[in-house]
Amino acid sequence: MNTSTNLRTHQCGELNMQHINNEVSICGWVAKVRDFGGLTFVDVRDRYGITQLAFNIETNEALCLKARALGREFVIQAKGKVIERSNKNKNIATGEIEIEVSELNILNESITPPFTIENETDGGEELRMKYRYLDIRRPILNERLVTRSKMIKAMREYLDEMNFTEVETPVLIKSTPEGARDFLVPSRMQPGNFYALPQSPQILKQLLMVSGMDRYYQVVKCYRDEDFRGDRQPEFTQLDCEMSFVNQEDVLQTVEGLTKHVFKKTKNIELADFIRLPYAEAIKTYGSDKPDLRFDCKIIDLDNLDCIKKSEFPLFQNATGNEHIIAAINATGCANMSRKQTDELVDFVKMPNRGLSGLIQIKLNEDGTIKSTIDKFLNEEQLREIANAMGASKGDLILIAVEKEAKVRKALGDLRLELGKKQNWIDKDKWSILWIVDFPLFEKDEETGNIIFVHHPFCNVHPDDVQYFDNEPLKCRAQQYDLVINGAECLSGSIRIHNKELQDKVFQKLGFTEEEKEERFGFMVNAFQYGAPPHGGFAFGVDRWVALMTGAEVIRDVIAFPKNNSGRDLMMDAPSYVDPKQLEELGIGLKK
Amino acid sequence: MNTSTNLRTHQCGELNMQHINNEVSICGWVAKVRDFGGLTFVDVRDRYGITQLAFNIETNEALCLKARALGREFVIQAKGKVIERSNKNKNIATGEIEIEVSELNILNESITPPFTIENETDGGEELRMKYRYLDIRRPILNERLVTRSKMIKAMREYLDEMNFTEVETPVLIKSTPEGARDFLVPSRMQPGNFYALPQSPQILKQLLMVSGMDRYYQVVKCYRDEDFRGDRQPEFTQLDCEMSFVNQEDVLQTVEGLTKHVFKKTKNIELADFIRLPYAEAIKTYGSDKPDLRFDCKIIDLDNLDCIKKSEFPLFQNATGNEHIIAAINATGCANMSRKQTDELVDFVKMPNRGLSGLIQIKLNEDGTIKSTIDKFLNEEQLREIANAMGASKGDLILIAVEKEAKVRKALGDLRLELGKKQNWIDKDKWSILWIVDFPLFEKDEETGNIIFVHHPFCNVHPDDVQYFDNEPLKCRAQQYDLVINGAECLSGSIRIHNKELQDKVFQKLGFTEEEKEERFGFMVNAFQYGAPPHGGFAFGVDRWVALMTGAEVIRDVIAFPKNNSGRDLMMDAPSYVDPKQLEELGIGLKK
Repeated sequence: MNTSTNLRTHQCGELNMQHINNEVSICGWVAKVRDFGGLTFVDVRDRYGITQLAFNIETNEALCLKARALGREFVIQAKGKVIERSNKNKNIATGEIEIEVSELNILNESITPPFTIENETDGGEELRMKYRYLDIRRPILNERLVTRSKMIKAMREYLDEMNFTEVETPVLIKSTPEGARDFLVPSRMQPGNFYALPQSPQILKQLLMVSGMDRYYQVVKCYRDEDFRGDRQPEFTQLDCEMSFVNQEDVLQTVEGLTKHVFKKTKNIELADFIRLPYAEAIKTYGSDKPDLRFDCKIIDLDNLDCIKKSEFPLFQNATGNEHIIAAINATGCANMSRKQTDELVDFVKMPNRGLSGLIQIKLNEDGTIKSTIDKFLNEEQLREIANAMGASKGDLILIAVEKEAKVRKALGDLRLELGKKQNWIDKDKWSILWIVDFPLFEKDEETGNIIFVHHPFCNVHPDDVQYFDNEPLKCRAQQYDLVINGAECLSGSIRIHNKELQDKVFQKLGFTEEEKEERFGFMVNAFQYGAPPHGGFAFGVDRWVALMTGAEVIRDVIAFPKNNSGRDLMMDAPSYVDPKQLEELGIGLKK
Repeated sequence: MNTSTNLRTHQCGELNMQHINNEVSICGWVAKVRDFGGLTFVDVRDRYGITQLAFNIETNEALCLKARALGREFVIQAKGKVIERSNKNKNIATGEIEIEVSELNILNESITPPFTIENETDGGEELRMKYRYLDIRRPILNERLVTRSKMIKAMREYLDEMNFTEVETPVLIKSTPEGARDFLVPSRMQPGNFYALPQSPQILKQLLMVSGMDRYYQVVKCYRDEDFRGDRQPEFTQLDCEMSFVNQEDVLQTVEGLTKHVFKKTKNIELADFIRLPYAEAIKTYGSDKPDLRFDCKIIDLDNLDCIKKSEFPLFQNATGNEHIIAAINATGCANMSRKQTDELVDFVKMPNRGLSGLIQIKLNEDGTIKSTIDKFLNEEQLREIANAMGASKGDLILIAVEKEAKVRKALGDLRLELGKKQNWIDKDKWSILWIVDFPLFEKDEETGNIIFVHHPFCNVHPDDVQYFDNEPLKCRAQQYDLVINGAECLSGSIRIHNKELQDKVFQKLGFTEEEKEERFGFMVNAFQYGAPPHGGFAFGVDRWVALMTGAEVIRDVIAFPKNNSGRDLMMDAPSYVDPKQLEELGIGLKK
């Protein structure tokens, strides 16, 4: 490896039996000192690996005593001869050799770290965030950052090969709120004026298409001033792409090629072609527009089942009148769940964000009997008819929901995922990668009743739905596509509107006044008069993708210096107070 | 090329004699329509090139009329057969062929652009900035952005090969003013608190070394809220690097390898090894720490010349007493300059920022005579002695300055550059690439008399000068190095202090109180207690380097969407006023 310098000939993961008798010099941190009386061993660590240093009290007492006095995390340089170990460690690359040290230099000392520098550390998250530079010294975190770098390299390789040009778009831009809040930057030279940090380079990349750049990409930081609940960061990274003279199929092929290349390069996995699921079907079958297909467990509609239609069970009888649907999932192998366990499932769907009133349960016991929570209303034959419709067999548990469609699908979709996790239905070595296509173009804002966009206002109409645009806009599908990996939305994109008239009509439909349109998107709408080509693109969420590839639970774990859930950097202690003179210069003041 | 899509089989720079008789489809912008009665030719342009479309009124009247009606910058798709041209154009790659069009689709119309989309455009800079998306459609600008992308790709290639890991550092950080003003970002979640945008990732990359990342790089935006006189941008891009367990020689070798690789990959130029010039020598010989060595014209000290020491000319006689030096440059071939021209040179050195009182001139005329502005005091023999010392010959003009050393060196250095430009001494095909090494560690602030740092406070002492640190700090050289390309400082770097005690002493020397140190650099100083390795690095100014490689006069010309000299983006009209509600949420108000 190209890592030798004037201070070291090799790094700590490199030496093996091929180097026996070589005189070498290595540098790193003291991971462990083990003293066996006559012999002392020191494990020295750098980001590439660990090498064992050997000292002998008989042959060189002074050196051996120096080694024994080394503290944890001291930085050292050791020179000596590579020799074969008597006790080999087959678990590490350097486990067959050690260095018979002839010179030991302490390059820097260390006080005792606040937690152990090992993959399984004793440090809590807050402490590790404060000492992030020590946290990153842990191999697992270090490797994640290296994998991140390799993944991004693979992305660039693929796109360069496909003739994309990486163009940097500005970070100090105009505030054009796209849905989330902008971070603002006061201008000192023009007091009272503000730049905004981009939520995405959406408009700029579309302007690059107008400029004829043809194929653009950028690995770029984006900024959203949101409340950081869940796994969000105020600054995040996306792979942002746009291409001209394309239709949806071109973009999908590009993304598939890109994704396959990155999987191949970083995990040596050959992916099959990606499934494409229309949005409506995803919602119907999985209750989600980002289904995890690593396990099955589909939502099955039971409304048209004979036994349901003829049932005297009031909930079923009144379903149609209440605009309710009757649908279910089959929890494979869950018939033996305890009452406590099934109660938990019921509580789960009753939570306010799901709002079901309960679940009808049918147990297909291992002994062949069948039992339900509505035995009073449905006889065994009817239950067996439902079981058949569900494809259920002995040992399974059927969970039926009756409510308004949207509620049922969401609740059963969530329940499906919950069961998947709890019952270990998910094969961790499997990858579920699929397209969701044919998203609706608009939706109704539940609070205001207004029409709002689903993706963003630049998304083009599905070519088959143009006729609905004027009078039934909610029926319009969009040329939008999301890539879902293991149940996480990792990429979203669309074919954009390139025609000024259509763009104007969309803005109108969304209720923008002429003034708002001009103020927020004027320069863009203006640009579209000068020959905008047909174009489309996507943004890939890099942090999420890296987290999935490295098995990290949260994106914080794949970001070198992340913020916590309150948007604070605990290491730097940012944000912080600033000198009032700085605010004076900016022409702003703090409100009490 | 991998640019075919469902709308085009080829791009506009691709087709040649090999494609004769192929049925193709291309897309692009109408550059020109030429109507020759029976025949109509349309030049269609994309970023890859221009292809000629041919229409014949006799064989397809409707299509030909449609072609004639095309306006400038219309976006079209043309399908047809590649045929050989009768009138070949050897100047362009596609000049031997044209397309016999069978189908023409107008993908979008265009109103008349505000300036012509050609390399030599009729649009002024302000207009082109406002319509930047049209400006970038000009091939020259487009190509510069593509070259930028290729250069950055080559940088990454080299560093990846050398085992560097690209790590993204945060953009929302703590305000720790490094010399220039920070851009601030008010925090909504913690009102009264501010993030700052990084002036450079200096501290963070050093912490990455503490974390064991070993070799880091990043192509990264940096931000400085300065007054944008000259060729500066509030946001600019640098290639930021840091490596552990290195000395200065390791870093210099890395930069040389990197630079050579980029020159080879983008311009196919094999660079020789770089000259290394100590700072003191550069100042002495060229009056600048970023000399342009594409031409010679050194500053030569004359104080010790016999004829000068013995001269009765009061200016020379009193020089020593006045702490003045006597030095000169030889303006090769300038003896025939008119009085007006030499007066301009004198005015140039008299400008307030140079402050000389005049120049003594000695002309070595082509006819062998010699003439000076101090003929009264120096005879011909003495003048010839000076000419010899200067290495001057017939036709040359010697310009002598007498003043305090710093003034003389700066003024003659500037004059040297001015002459280089005016006299066309610079070979545009030549590259002057050199290291400036051995910078001073500290300097005296001329206003306050305080000791301030030259590079930054993390710069290590030259190993030979440690003994001066305590008592004669101004004598200390630093382990700092700058790379100068064609007279522009393109890179600056240093070996850093990795030892907490030395770092503390430097902060003390710079006059930081314990509180200031803790407030601004506390987390860094703290980190250095936990085993910081020896490390060093550099930052390469990407914008400047790209400008030099593409022959751009200003860095604006190699940035997709730059700001003007008042920090405004004329296209987006940013910065701008924002909704008072946004400020309310941030807890800030505007000062009247």
